Amino acid sequence: MTKPAALIVLFLTIWAVDVSAAETLAIVGGTVIDGNGGAPIKDGVIVIQGARIAAVGGHATVIPTEARRILAAGQYVIPGLMDANVHLVLDAQPLTLIRFEGRYDELAIEAAQLALRNGVTTVFDSWGPRQYLVKARNAINAGNVIASRIYLAGNIVGLGGPLSKDFWGPFIAGPALDTAAQRLNALWQENVGPELLWMSPEEVRSEVRRYIEKGDIDFLKYAVNAHSLNADQYIAFSPRVQQVIVEEARRAGLRVETHTTSGEGLYLAVAAGVDLMQHCEFTGQQPIPAETVKLIALRQIPCAILPETTEARAWYRDKNNELDVRDLNERALIRAGARIVLSTDSGVFSPDLMNSTFWKNREPPGGGLLTLGEAHFSWLRAVEEKGMKPMEALLAATRNIAIAYGVNKDLGTLEKGKIADLLILDASPLESAANYRSINLVMKDGNVVDRASLPTQRLLTAE
Amino acid sequence: MTKPAALIVLFLTIWAVDVSAAETLAIVGGTVIDGNGGAPIKDGVIVIQGARIAAVGGHATVIPTEARRILAAGQYVIPGLMDANVHLVLDAQPLTLIRFEGRYDELAIEAAQLALRNGVTTVFDSWGPRQYLVKARNAINAGNVIASRIYLAGNIVGLGGPLSKDFWGPFIAGPALDTAAQRLNALWQENVGPELLWMSPEEVRSEVRRYIEKGDIDFLKYAVNAHSLNADQYIAFSPRVQQVIVEEARRAGLRVETHTTSGEGLYLAVAAGVDLMQHCEFTGQQPIPAETVKLIALRQIPCAILPETTEARAWYRDKNNELDVRDLNERALIRAGARIVLSTDSGVFSPDLMNSTFWKNREPPGGGLLTLGEAHFSWLRAVEEKGMKPMEALLAATRNIAIAYGVNKDLGTLEKGKIADLLILDASPLESAANYRSINLVMKDGNVVDRASLPTQRLLTAE
Amino acid sequence: MTKPAALIVLFLTIWAVDVSAAETLAIVGGTVIDGNGGAPIKDGVIVIQGARIAAVGGHATVIPTEARRILAAGQYVIPGLMDANVHLVLDAQPLTLIRFEGRYDELAIEAAQLALRNGVTTVFDSWGPRQYLVKARNAINAGNVIASRIYLAGNIVGLGGPLSKDFWGPFIAGPALDTAAQRLNALWQENVGPELLWMSPEEVRSEVRRYIEKGDIDFLKYAVNAHSLNADQYIAFSPRVQQVIVEEARRAGLRVETHTTSGEGLYLAVAAGVDLMQHCEFTGQQPIPAETVKLIALRQIPCAILPETTEARAWYRDKNNELDVRDLNERALIRAGARIVLSTDSGVFSPDLMNSTFWKNREPPGGGLLTLGEAHFSWLRAVEEKGMKPMEALLAATRNIAIAYGVNKDLGTLEKGKIADLLILDASPLESAANYRSINLVMKDGNVVDRASLPTQRLLTAE
Amino acid sequence: MTKPAALIVLFLTIWAVDVSAAETLAIVGGTVIDGNGGAPIKDGVIVIQGARIAAVGGHATVIPTEARRILAAGQYVIPGLMDANVHLVLDAQPLTLIRFEGRYDELAIEAAQLALRNGVTTVFDSWGPRQYLVKARNAINAGNVIASRIYLAGNIVGLGGPLSKDFWGPFIAGPALDTAAQRLNALWQENVGPELLWMSPEEVRSEVRRYIEKGDIDFLKYAVNAHSLNADQYIAFSPRVQQVIVEEARRAGLRVETHTTSGEGLYLAVAAGVDLMQHCEFTGQQPIPAETVKLIALRQIPCAILPETTEARAWYRDKNNELDVRDLNERALIRAGARIVLSTDSGVFSPDLMNSTFWKNREPPGGGLLTLGEAHFSWLRAVEEKGMKPMEALLAATRNIAIAYGVNKDLGTLEKGKIADLLILDASPLESAANYRSINLVMKDGNVVDRASLPTQRLLTAE
Repeated sequence: MTKPAALIVLFLTIWAVDVSAAETLAIVGGTVIDGNGGAPIKDGVIVIQGARIAAVGGHATVIPTEARRILAAGQYVIPGLMDANVHLVLDAQPLTLIRFEGRYDELAIEAAQLALRNGVTTVFDSWGPRQYLVKARNAINAGNVIASRIYLAGNIVGLGGPLSKDFWGPFIAGPALDTAAQRLNALWQENVGPELLWMSPEEVRSEVRRYIEKGDIDFLKYAVNAHSLNADQYIAFSPRVQQVIVEEARRAGLRVETHTTSGEGLYLAVAAGVDLMQHCEFTGQQPIPAETVKLIALRQIPCAILPETTEARAWYRDKNNELDVRDLNERALIRAGARIVLSTDSGVFSPDLMNSTFWKNREPPGGGLLTLGEAHFSWLRAVEEKGMKPMEALLAATRNIAIAYGVNKDLGTLEKGKIADLLILDASPLESAANYRSINLVMKDGNVVDRASLPTQRLLTAE
Repeated sequence: MTKPAALIVLFLTIWAVDVSAAETLAIVGGTVIDGNGGAPIKDGVIVIQGARIAAVGGHATVIPTEARRILAAGQYVIPGLMDANVHLVLDAQPLTLIRFEGRYDELAIEAAQLALRNGVTTVFDSWGPRQYLVKARNAINAGNVIASRIYLAGNIVGLGGPLSKDFWGPFIAGPALDTAAQRLNALWQENVGPELLWMSPEEVRSEVRRYIEKGDIDFLKYAVNAHSLNADQYIAFSPRVQQVIVEEARRAGLRVETHTTSGEGLYLAVAAGVDLMQHCEFTGQQPIPAETVKLIALRQIPCAILPETTEARAWYRDKNNELDVRDLNERALIRAGARIVLSTDSGVFSPDLMNSTFWKNREPPGGGLLTLGEAHFSWLRAVEEKGMKPMEALLAATRNIAIAYGVNKDLGTLEKGKIADLLILDASPLESAANYRSINLVMKDGNVVDRASLPTQRLLTAE
Repeated sequence: MTKPAALIVLFLTIWAVDVSAAETLAIVGGTVIDGNGGAPIKDGVIVIQGARIAAVGGHATVIPTEARRILAAGQYVIPGLMDANVHLVLDAQPLTLIRFEGRYDELAIEAAQLALRNGVTTVFDSWGPRQYLVKARNAINAGNVIASRIYLAGNIVGLGGPLSKDFWGPFIAGPALDTAAQRLNALWQENVGPELLWMSPEEVRSEVRRYIEKGDIDFLKYAVNAHSLNADQYIAFSPRVQQVIVEEARRAGLRVETHTTSGEGLYLAVAAGVDLMQHCEFTGQQPIPAETVKLIALRQIPCAILPETTEARAWYRDKNNELDVRDLNERALIRAGARIVLSTDSGVFSPDLMNSTFWKNREPPGGGLLTLGEAHFSWLRAVEEKGMKPMEALLAATRNIAIAYGVNKDLGTLEKGKIADLLILDASPLESAANYRSINLVMKDGNVVDRASLPTQRLLTAE
Repeated sequence: MTKPAALIVLFLTIWAVDVSAAETLAIVGGTVIDGNGGAPIKDGVIVIQGARIAAVGGHATVIPTEARRILAAGQYVIPGLMDANVHLVLDAQPLTLIRFEGRYDELAIEAAQLALRNGVTTVFDSWGPRQYLVKARNAINAGNVIASRIYLAGNIVGLGGPLSKDFWGPFIAGPALDTAAQRLNALWQENVGPELLWMSPEEVRSEVRRYIEKGDIDFLKYAVNAHSLNADQYIAFSPRVQQVIVEEARRAGLRVETHTTSGEGLYLAVAAGVDLMQHCEFTGQQPIPAETVKLIALRQIPCAILPETTEARAWYRDKNNELDVRDLNERALIRAGARIVLSTDSGVFSPDLMNSTFWKNREPPGGGLLTLGEAHFSWLRAVEEKGMKPMEALLAATRNIAIAYGVNKDLGTLEKGKIADLLILDASPLESAANYRSINLVMKDGNVVDRASLPTQRLLTAE
């Protein structure tokens, strides 16, 4: 395929120029909300040298003379948004997998570009085809393509690939699918798939260690609960096996997070001492017990939630009474002062899928939280509706995620020395969550992003 | 329905005579294998007065003059067989449930009569519709019908009814089934169904206590693992919830047993301190870790297994590779000296089901272990094939079960004071397991059973 | 079963008295609409002797002195309603079939009583289990039970039984169903099921002749089109085979009717020279060609339609665009002056079915046309909405059906010598179709029906 | 895609040389079986100039001096084989359709090359995506690629596309499939899909005419019977509509053939006066009536059959009792002297499909008749087993097909003036059908085919 190759060459050239120039920029005159939770700086100044922030301050801040000035009067400067849970290859149904077999890195880049275009400068991919995600991440980090920064986990330890019973399996069937499914599932599962659920603690330890030693993942995720239709109430790994998995992550210096879908699952995750819990408000038909909420808040364990907006919930009503439980849980966690982080579980879906009857019966109009590029805006609106204070919401989408994943040395706030990932908004995000949509400029690694050009190659998003 | 009513009257009459007579019997001249594991008594004598054994000994044992003598020269007298796991209402698919709605006690009695006819004088029903089983049990205990003695657990705590996803659910569908299924499942589930899996420990405690307080169950069974297609590897209750369930059983003086289907599940059951584990060799794709085998043997936790005969395994081969794991486990448990008990998980199935393509594709010819009345013979042959010593097999089918369920004061051996449940065989069970089929006489409660008349009412077994 | 037996004895007694008495009745003072289409007789008189009408006329009509008078001043007397298409055993899904196996005659009687209670004195059952329907028909004709008069066809030649692919097959599955389905389908199919579709004309002739020679059916029905999901557009029998079937019906003096579901099917039915066509407006996605409409009207071939009310259509909209075609067809047939007959395709359904999700997604609230006892009221309202004149509608529900089935010597109008089947309504059916509901009295065979007592035995309709 | 482009250039070059050279060849010394049914010519000579045969005769035939000689002593020269029924895009299940969307012409060429490699120089594609087949056919005819000569029908009038209920529909499902299926089915159906079954004769005429007027099809095929699971016994078009379809084909000078699957269907096809009938032995559960066999033989209507070898039938036994009927029919047709033509219904399937459980349960090992490139060999063996004489079999595979499709002016025999399509075999096809496999040389259009290089681009056949 010559076209992408050509594009890569092109990017390399442009990038080289940027980097060698190490241009100095100054964003001047805007209200700076630095992501630390303090009072915004009116008429602020941010100086950027190369990829990093050289200074942040009030209007008196010294601006190097060579700096190119970006005027932001009447505007708001905030850290680049982060998303603690995306799946860059989420339209992992057979048709898409087969159509793009061997090209999932391209799908991942398309998704990461869609995220960046919409102000999300860093994403954490918590389930995907490891090798392809690594390829995409590395291409982005090398500056070969411009897209959201990727951190990745590969498979969720204990779960199957996309065409297994744990994901699309129950919805699909096709005469050639068993052979193809095995091949495709293996790209996700590698050596940490559902077969681990039959193993002894030490056998699991050995597989997880082997998986980590491949050296490519940025964090580890494992299944506390099952992930499949009608099995969400079950527990995947016994406590002593969970302990082993957490030990292996620690040993390799990796953060470890979990998939849980029941109250007991959440309790077990807390007990196992994990660093982050995905969709921790998913507890089926029973709300999280009050003492567990308290514990989560007390220990400030980062807690990703997937709140629905009032509008989306209205669409679902009568179809799923577990949504009320989630809503109760979200409000309880917010009230208790839990350390909430923005997480969308979102991805990019093909028009073939989004126009299907299946999808229309399943997803609220607009795609709810699942549509990457839109989902973080919905998230911010939803938590506002549920009573989270504007500044808390901003931290949930920036600093808290950086801390949760241990990347706060470089990311999450607008501070001297940090990587210059930021947004300029036309309206204040502290006044209304809707204002996160008023993106005027996206900067990543100190470079102004040409949003209109993203995604550079339209695969799934092509009409 | 006048017919059964008439029969009941008839039985009452006969029975009344028997009981008032308190007939004295003496079984004379046979080889007595008393179920305690010692050397058989050649030319032995057993004296029975009323329902109980008055004496057991050699040929010198005093026989009351009024005793009616049963000559057993050249024959073998053993304790009545026990089955640690049956389901008297197991053909719990929609057609059978609907056809016999409101009459499940009759199905249970038919099944218990089939068991008795084939030498099983006591059965433990570990999953069924409680109210109906209670009715059947009580009718038998009151002497209103002659059938195998029933002990029952009702539902398996945490599992759904027969038409839920946990059992026939995935195989069935029908336009009117959702309403009917709800009604029928409730007969099994009562207040201890799958909704407990979403609850906190104290909520589970409260439901289990309420269930036990109904006052009718003889032992408690709960799900450590899931029970459904493709979900067997999952864990149902967290350890702390299991603890609560065991506590509530203990508090009520009930034995507690488990359903497990994975190595970790088995480990959790052992850790929870249960009294018996059903099909404990079911560990999916991985054999039981050696240390768990050791632990089970060391603590002598009664261990029910469902061994397939070589012939049945041959039929299955290529269809299910988990059978090899089971075989390995069974041999390992036997070798380690675990306290094995006979358990068949069997029931009675209608000809409509047994002649169906579904069944023919699923069950080996002859019905394998699942056919009540046959299954215990297969069991005894299978353990013989797997290396269990003849005397051990006999204890596994008698005394060990009585001890496991705490009913050894009355049942399980041929000893003075115990209830006179016994079989006279034409050939020695210590020479070949096949000889258990050579039943000459079945006695229960000191009464000789008219085997030819059982079942007294043919429902499912009617052609 | 002793209860029904007792009832039968009781009925026989009462009946015997009625018949021997040959009571003379006179309905006096009402407006008589005799079903011949002429002007109603105000202040009319109908004299009934025994089961038959002795006189009909104005107020001057001579009334025998011994006559018991029924005053009908301000009321309306019309012929008993007829339904050209019912299925007395229509809830023929597995659960109902199994629950009542061997008792389908009781279900048929329950349905016929529900019809009678609601003013339908004669029904034509065009698909059902022949032997059971015969039993029900004969019991009614013998006066053993009071219910709507039944004429029956047995199977639709060429179609399968209720659990075949042609009916409930695609919706159901169950492990034991293949064996049960075969047994149950055979009750409908006998020797004229789908296997005829593979046969040569002379082979079909031989089977149809054999079927007719059983001697019990009142008319013959055959499939011109397929009857099953997604196959309605296909043709079942070739024209020359249809010719053979019609010949055999003629030879036996039977009327012959058809099942059609496409424009070409309708054309073939007309060409085959049948006596009545069921749901002749069912032509899938294309309206009946204008020339075929003309032909049907010209030849006055009785044409049964199943019109939906505006209300019911509103519920369906968006779910099935073939309904618009039906509506167009119905209006075109009415406009062209086709000989329309009332036909409902209705039956009795169990609460288990009617409360199921399946049903709720399929049937409009109120049950649309399908609910026996209600459906004829909906039919009359629907044709009124579609522009049929009130008197035409009344003829469609009475005389036209009697003529179509060749029973007009005895039934269909209020004329001297005919069987005294009639209704007294409180409001005029010529003013509003809704007034058919104002039933004050139902008379069948000259006997006033005790409507409140019907159905005498509640099976499917029991809550 | 640069690779195929390069290949095309390459072929054009080579071809240009061939054509301009108009090389003269002489095949010398072989036994010539010219396809007219007469005695083979021993030590024969065939002279070829350019694409056509210049002379055929005994060893005395004059050989131009410039002729390049191909020695065939001890070998057998026969006309190139023809296949009256293939589907060049037959692996039309979702995975393949999606993977190669937009490239079906490449799949068709791959299939046509596989055919050519195995001695089939001409194929008739009777169901496929018209536009892509046209593209493939034209590329081959233009000499841009070397492959079997293609004649095509496009859709089977009245049937749906590959993902409709008529083909893969019932086997597949997938969340995005409804939208994709609609798009993909339309490539087959165009304006002559299943909606025609609802139309009046004149409406059908108009659509068929419009379809033919697109100008690209070589013959027309329509559905007399339905094509789908459980619907094969139904008739698709009424006789008068069939008449219209045949008229429109005649009007355009096209041969017309049919899909039939029942005895009555076959009779209707004969009555409609079609030119060829595909798989005319498929008559479900009843053999073709004797008079219809006679009629077919009398009129010498070309009759394509799909005989299974004894070996393949053995595999199927117990799975499908309709195979016995087919066998009876085939033997009856052969005995009656019907004009049989070789027809395989074959195509190329991906390893993903052929390794699937679905396939393994469905197709006999070796792929039976369905595997293009193999199927014609099986066909020839099968008819030999069923009693067809060797020379008849050879005519069935060559001349009879050419006549049936009206292309015998150019193809089908080895005669002066005809296109030089021929095979040289190492062993005599008149001695054993197995000898058709002994292909030594394939010539098409007077060019020796480099069999080893085919297919030139491996798509479906790639491992």
